[in-house]
Amino acid sequence: MASSSSSSSNHRNPEVRKDIISNRWIIFSPARSKRPSDFKSKSPIHSNPNPNPNPNQSCPFCIGHEHECAPEILRVPPDGPDWNIRVIQNLYPALSRDLRFGSNHPTRSGLVLDGFGFHDVVIETPVHWVQLSDLSPLEIGHVFLAHTMRIKQVASNEDIKYVQVFKNHGASAGASMSHSHSQILAVPIIPTNVSTRLESMKCYFDQKGKCCLCESHSENLLINSSTYFVSLVPFAASFPFEMWIVPKYHSAHFHELDDEKAVDLGGLLKLMLKKMSLQLNNPPFNFMIHTSPLHANESELAYTHWFIQIVPQLTGIAGFEMGTGCYINPVFPEDAAKVLREVNVPE
Amino acid sequence: MASSSSSSSNHRNPEVRKDIISNRWIIFSPARSKRPSDFKSKSPIHSNPNPNPNPNQSCPFCIGHEHECAPEILRVPPDGPDWNIRVIQNLYPALSRDLRFGSNHPTRSGLVLDGFGFHDVVIETPVHWVQLSDLSPLEIGHVFLAHTMRIKQVASNEDIKYVQVFKNHGASAGASMSHSHSQILAVPIIPTNVSTRLESMKCYFDQKGKCCLCESHSENLLINSSTYFVSLVPFAASFPFEMWIVPKYHSAHFHELDDEKAVDLGGLLKLMLKKMSLQLNNPPFNFMIHTSPLHANESELAYTHWFIQIVPQLTGIAGFEMGTGCYINPVFPEDAAKVLREVNVPE
Repeated sequence: MASSSSSSSNHRNPEVRKDIISNRWIIFSPARSKRPSDFKSKSPIHSNPNPNPNPNQSCPFCIGHEHECAPEILRVPPDGPDWNIRVIQNLYPALSRDLRFGSNHPTRSGLVLDGFGFHDVVIETPVHWVQLSDLSPLEIGHVFLAHTMRIKQVASNEDIKYVQVFKNHGASAGASMSHSHSQILAVPIIPTNVSTRLESMKCYFDQKGKCCLCESHSENLLINSSTYFVSLVPFAASFPFEMWIVPKYHSAHFHELDDEKAVDLGGLLKLMLKKMSLQLNNPPFNFMIHTSPLHANESELAYTHWFIQIVPQLTGIAGFEMGTGCYINPVFPEDAAKVLREVNVPE
Repeated sequence: MASSSSSSSNHRNPEVRKDIISNRWIIFSPARSKRPSDFKSKSPIHSNPNPNPNPNQSCPFCIGHEHECAPEILRVPPDGPDWNIRVIQNLYPALSRDLRFGSNHPTRSGLVLDGFGFHDVVIETPVHWVQLSDLSPLEIGHVFLAHTMRIKQVASNEDIKYVQVFKNHGASAGASMSHSHSQILAVPIIPTNVSTRLESMKCYFDQKGKCCLCESHSENLLINSSTYFVSLVPFAASFPFEMWIVPKYHSAHFHELDDEKAVDLGGLLKLMLKKMSLQLNNPPFNFMIHTSPLHANESELAYTHWFIQIVPQLTGIAGFEMGTGCYINPVFPEDAAKVLREVNVPE
C-alpha cells in the first residue's frame, strides 16, 4: 500500500485519498477535529466492575438457557452440557434457510431472488459478563475456528455465494443482545462491496503482478504484529481509528485458517480490542471479516486476500456519506497508527 | 423500473432485489418486523408548539447574527438586511477553498489529491423555529434555486468535478445545528457512488435504449405526483420508507432546474416531508440530491437523470451493511408506497 508523510495533523490541510481495496475516495479533514489523541467515545459501553459468574436470568444466550434459543447448529466442545461456544440459528433471520430456489433458479426476473440463506449467531462465551477481549488468545482462536467450521458447512450448498462474518458490539453499533456474540450471514449473491473489492484488487494485481495486501505495508501505518498477522491503519481509512488485521501470508479465504494461526490471530485481535478500549473509552464497535466468494476461481485466488476490519463507532454517517459513498475522516491514518502503536496495555 | 407483486408483507418470504441505479443488492426481510404501518421513529424531533418569531440568541444562523457566521456567498433576495435564504461558507469545512492544486495536478501520487473544494451551508429560513416543511412551495422552490445558483458558481472551477447537495435533519441524522439548513459540498473527484451509478445507468441505456428513470414507474411504487415530478419508493429501496422524487422530464443536472419547476418541486417535497413526519412520528432524516458530474459529456447526459433521495432514520446500519454494502430492509417497497400514498395530510 502507498505511503505518506507522517507529520502531525495539527494545521494540516485536508487531503483526498483513494482506498485501492474498496476503490473509494476518502476525505481527510482535520479542520474540525481535536488532536488525534483526544478522540474518545461519547457513549462508552460500561463493563460490569464485578463480573457475576451466574447466568443472567433474562438472557437466552447464557448457559442453562439453551432451550430459549433457536436450534443449535454446533457447539465447542462438541459434546456435553458444558459448552464454551455455541453456533445457533438466528431467531429473527434476515434470510430463510427453508426457501429453495424454484425452477427458475437463480433469479425470478434478473433483479429478484428468493431470500434463501443462512443467518446464524455465534455465542462466544457461556458467561453473560465476559466480553470477547476478556477471553484468552486460545479461546478467541476457538471462536474463529467455530466461524470457519460453519462456513465450511454452508459452502457445500451451491446456492450460497458469499459468507459475511461480523460482530456488532454495543447497542448503537447494532447489537440487540449484550451477551457477547458474532453473526454469520450466508447469502445467495456476491455483495456489491465484494465484487467491487475483487475488481479493484484484480486491477492492482494486473498492473503490479502482486497481491496488494501481500505488498509490504508502510511503517508509519503499522500498529502491531504477531507471528502470522499484522495490524495496521489502512492508508485511506474510512473511519477514525479504523484498524485492519491482515495475514502476512497470502490467503484468499478466511475459512482456511488453521488451529495455530487461529490462536495467533486471537492474540492480536485481543491486543487491538484492548488498545481500542483503552484509547477510545470503550467505544461500541463493529468488526467484519472480509473474505473471497466461496466459489472463487483459480485466478481470483491469486489476487484476493482476506482481512479483518475493526471500526470503533466514534462518528456517524450523514447525507454526504450516504449520497456519495465518500467518507470524511477527521484523523489522518498515520496519526491514528502512531496513537494506537503507543497505547500501553497492562499485562 | 421493474415491477413486483403487491401482496402484503405479512408472512411474506424474504426476497433479494437489485437496485439498477446503485447496482446494489438489498435484502427485504419482513420476518422481524411489525406491520409496515407500525413503523415509527423512536427518537422523533420535537417541534416547538409555540414557534417564537424572535431570534434564538445562541444561534448564529438566526437573523441579526450574521456577524457570527463564516463569510456570506449569496443571499435571497440579493440586497438589504431582510433575507429569506443565505448561502454561507461552512465554518468547519471538510475541504479547503484556499488550496489550489500544485504543479503536479491533478494528483500527487495517483492515490492522493490536495483537499481542494467548497463546503457551503444554505440557511433555509431566517427564523429559528421554522422547518423546511413549514415553508410554502414557493419558498422551498427558492431554496432549491439557491442551491442551483451556488452550483453554477462553483461549476466554473474546472478542478471541481461533482457537487453534492444534502440535508441532515436532526442530531442523529448528522445535523450539528437545529436551525433549518442544507449543505453543498463541491469536490475535486467523482465520488464512488456517482461513478457506479453512471456505469449502471449506462448499462441499462445500452441494453434498452432508454434512460432508466424516464421509464414509466410501476404503479404500486408510486406515492404522489405534481406537474413535473413524481414521488415513489424505489423498487429496491435501501431503507424502510425511503422515497425518491424524480423529474418526469429527462434531465441530467439538477442545477438546470428553472423557476416554475422549482416551485412545483417545492410543493411535492413539502408533501413528502409532511407525510413522512405524520406517518413515521417526525423522524430525523437525510435527503440527497443525486445529479451528474459537472463536466459530463454528451453521451452521459443521455442516460443520467437527477433525483432526490429522502431517507427517514428508522434503522441503523451495522456490521453486515458495512461489510457487504447490502442493506437489510424490513419493509417491502410496495407496502411502504401504499402506506405513504394513503397518509392524509391536513390542509
